[in-house]
Parts: sequence; structure tokens; C-alpha cells
Amino acid sequence: MTDIVFNHATVRERADMLTFLRLSAERGLQTVSVWGDEIAKVGENDALSVLHDLGMTVSGYNRVGPLSAGSLDQAEAELERAARFEADHVFLFTGGLRDNEKDLGSARRRIEDSIGKVLDSARKIGVKLAIEPLHPMVTGDRSVISSLSHANSLCEALGPGIGVVVDVYHCWWDERLPAEIQRAGDAGWLLGFHVNDWLIPTRHLLTDRGMMGDGIIDLRGIYSMVRSAGYKGAVEVEIFSTDWWSRDPAEVMDIAIDRCRSLFSEE
Amino acid sequence: MTDIVFNHATVRERADMLTFLRLSAERGLQTVSVWGDEIAKVGENDALSVLHDLGMTVSGYNRVGPLSAGSLDQAEAELERAARFEADHVFLFTGGLRDNEKDLGSARRRIEDSIGKVLDSARKIGVKLAIEPLHPMVTGDRSVISSLSHANSLCEALGPGIGVVVDVYHCWWDERLPAEIQRAGDAGWLLGFHVNDWLIPTRHLLTDRGMMGDGIIDLRGIYSMVRSAGYKGAVEVEIFSTDWWSRDPAEVMDIAIDRCRSLFSEE
Repeated sequence: MTDIVFNHATVRERADMLTFLRLSAERGLQTVSVWGDEIAKVGENDALSVLHDLGMTVSGYNRVGPLSAGSLDQAEAELERAARFEADHVFLFTGGLRDNEKDLGSARRRIEDSIGKVLDSARKIGVKLAIEPLHPMVTGDRSVISSLSHANSLCEALGPGIGVVVDVYHCWWDERLPAEIQRAGDAGWLLGFHVNDWLIPTRHLLTDRGMMGDGIIDLRGIYSMVRSAGYKGAVEVEIFSTDWWSRDPAEVMDIAIDRCRSLFSEE
Repeated sequence: MTDIVFNHATVRERADMLTFLRLSAERGLQTVSVWGDEIAKVGENDALSVLHDLGMTVSGYNRVGPLSAGSLDQAEAELERAARFEADHVFLFTGGLRDNEKDLGSARRRIEDSIGKVLDSARKIGVKLAIEPLHPMVTGDRSVISSLSHANSLCEALGPGIGVVVDVYHCWWDERLPAEIQRAGDAGWLLGFHVNDWLIPTRHLLTDRGMMGDGIIDLRGIYSMVRSAGYKGAVEVEIFSTDWWSRDPAEVMDIAIDRCRSLFSEE
């Protein structure tokens, strides 16, 4: 069975970080993905101490960005906190267009330049960066990197210390997906694989993701692509959903684990 | 000044087809884009007769499809009606995945086969087909063709009698857009250019499009791309919006014409 990791965002509305760590440990999970703002809420010392007491490790740290607004100082503070949590990788959240900005091509070049600067800092601090392309429905306000192709090309241009995270929600529609997953795998850029599902109908652009199996994404098919491309890491559950946020966190995690076991078994 | 065409969908909630034709003619417009279901509501004979009395012509006819559900007979009936209206081109609406279907790759191949069959019919009947890639947020339920790249490749594979329509709403986010518009122009595939805008926030996946200028799309920039690629046709206003549908159709059209004149002047 593949490892399962929860992203704290999946249950953050009703479980603070310390509760989330305990719920994960109780389910035999050894790794979590965490958020800087949730660490701040419970206090970094307490968060680190519970993490260590439970013998857990951190996969993804959310996040550096938005790059369009934040200063490099702020990015470095996040990178340093991620290093203290010994996170495997740190998510870059590019942000979208500036107020009144319409030239997407030049916005992309500006943000690519910023990523280069953050990468210099990340190398010094000793943490890996992860680009997670987000769905084209949030290009304007959340991420100007809208495809795995673009993320891969950026990794190629920028060199060591940066990779990609494939979230099925953001990438499943792309006719280039099989080839680009293989490309990322061949180059050693695959840092994470996030799962959830696309619901029909989808009632909100940000907060109506589905539980794995409740939607239309070919989760087994995409999992098979990342495995064939050499990805050996965990399956990370990340569901932004007002429906699932309103339910008992333990129940949500149990359902998600069942779904993962049924969808992502190795045999 | 470039020609302006309204797609009836922009005002269909409060103006039937005959009203829409008169409103267009009163504004000095010579061409319209029409819908088969709206023709049926007012009666085909009346629709044709008012169209001819006003001396107007039809640009786009909506539509053939969804291909995933409809029979070829139904598609041919639509193509024949489009021919009676002497439409410049007929939109293909592919539809999305079938119930319980998850393999997007095989759905795409199935629908590509169907398009080949519809194209055979369209050639016999003497009308051009238009593929309009739709935004990746509707890949699952409305169109498995989600990028201009995919549409162009299909045109290349299928040969004469089929082209593409570029709708800014569906394509603006794509880093391949400049190159793919040029590719379509070079090959003579550019049949239409649809305008509207992307609002931040977008509150609904289907019915929250913006009036040109109210959102974040670089309309001038994309217009310049299609012109540079050799497109000489009209700018077609197509806005699916519960907000704009609730307003007086004449007012909506006047505002849209003003916006087009200010955004798409040739100088």
C-alpha cells in the first residue's frame, strides 16, 4: 500500500494543527503536509514539539507567496520556518495578475523572475521548492502557472532545487498530461501527488472539490501515470470543500483513507 | 471599424429571435449568430422571413451536439437547417464524459471519431464546421476539447471543411495561445472570434461571464493576435451571464457595441 498523507487544509476548519497531527498519528500515518498560518495559530514551539513527540515528519509546507505581492524577506521567513519543520518541499503560490494588470505574458515573465530569486534563497536555506500548477479557472487570481507543461519548463530553465506537484484537480483535463508526467518523472521533478475529485456540477471555483471517487477524474489512471514515471512518494489528500469542512474531521479522514486504499493499491 | 456580430445567447432570456434580429438591424448590424432551439421557438419560416426582410446574414449557427448523446441523424437535421439559414459555420458542441465514464483519453478518441462522421455529412450538405474549444473547467460536462492546440490538431487531421472559433473566455489563460492562434491563421482555420470577459471573482462556471472591459482578459492583445494571424472576420459578442440576461436587451447591446468600438478599433 502506498503511503497516505493528509494536507491539513482538508480538515482545517474544525481541527487545529495539534488536533490534526494527533488525528493523523492515530490513523497510523507518519507524515503530514502543513500550513504556516496554522502553525502560527497554535504556536511554532507547540507544533514542533507535538510533531516530534508523535514521531511524525512533514512532506509539504504551504507556502511561499503570493509572489506578486509578497517581499523576498517574507518568502525567506517562510522558507526558514519550513526548514525548521524539515519539510520535504515548500509550495510556491504565485498569485495571479496585479490590480489592473491584463498582460498575462508579461505577468508570467515577472513571476518567473521572482521564482528565480526565491529559488536562490531556498538553495541557501536548504529546502526544495515545489511548483503546483493550478487550474486555468484560477489563472487570474491565484496562479499564473496553469499547466504542468509550464511548470516543467520552468524547472528545466531554473535548474536544481525545484520540482513539481501534480494535483489531479488542476491537471486532469490536460491532453498533455501523460507526456508531461513522464517528462517530470524522467527529470526527477515529481515531488508530490495530490488527490481529490472533480464534481459535476461544481458549484464554486475554490471550495467545491470532491472526495476521491465522488467525481469524474480517472484517479487510478493518473496514479498509474505517476508511478510509471517513477514517483515513489505518498498520495496526499487535499480537499478544499465547504461540504467536507463541515463534517467531523476524524470521519473525513477515515473515509478518505478507505477511498485511497481502494483506488491506489499497488496490486 | 471591425464588424460586430451578436450571438443571440447574449440577450436570449428577454429577446426572442425575431426581436433579436430587429434589435441587431436597428443598430446597423448586418450579421447575427443564431441558435436552432431559438429558431424552433419562433418558427423557422418566420425566422427566415424576418432575416431576409432585414437583409441580414448568419455567421455562426449553434449547434450540432452533444456528440456523446446525439445521433448522426439529429446532427444532419441541424446541419440542414444551418444550410437553409446559409450560416457561415456550424458549432460543434462535443459534450463531456458519458455517465460513469472516467477515461478522458478514450472519450476524446470516441468524440474525435464522431466529429469525423459529422464532417462527412457537413461536406455533403455544404456547411463548414467550427470547433470551439471550451474552458478546462467544463471538460467533464460540456466539451472534451479544452484547448486551441487540440482543436487545431483535429483540423489538421480531418482536412477541409472544419475550422476553429477562438472565444477569449475559454482560451485566454493558455500559454500556447499566441502560437496556436498563429497556427490556425496560417492554416486558414480561423472562422470566428468571440468576446466577453473573465470576472474576478467568477461566481458560476457557466453563467457569470463579464462584459468586455469589466474583467481581466487582455482583449486588445488577443484581438491583435487574431488580426496578425490574418483573421478578417467579425468580433462576435457572446456573454452568458445571469446579470446581463436580466437587463434590457437593447441596453446590453448598446453597451457591448460601445465597448467593442473602444477596444477593437483598427487604428
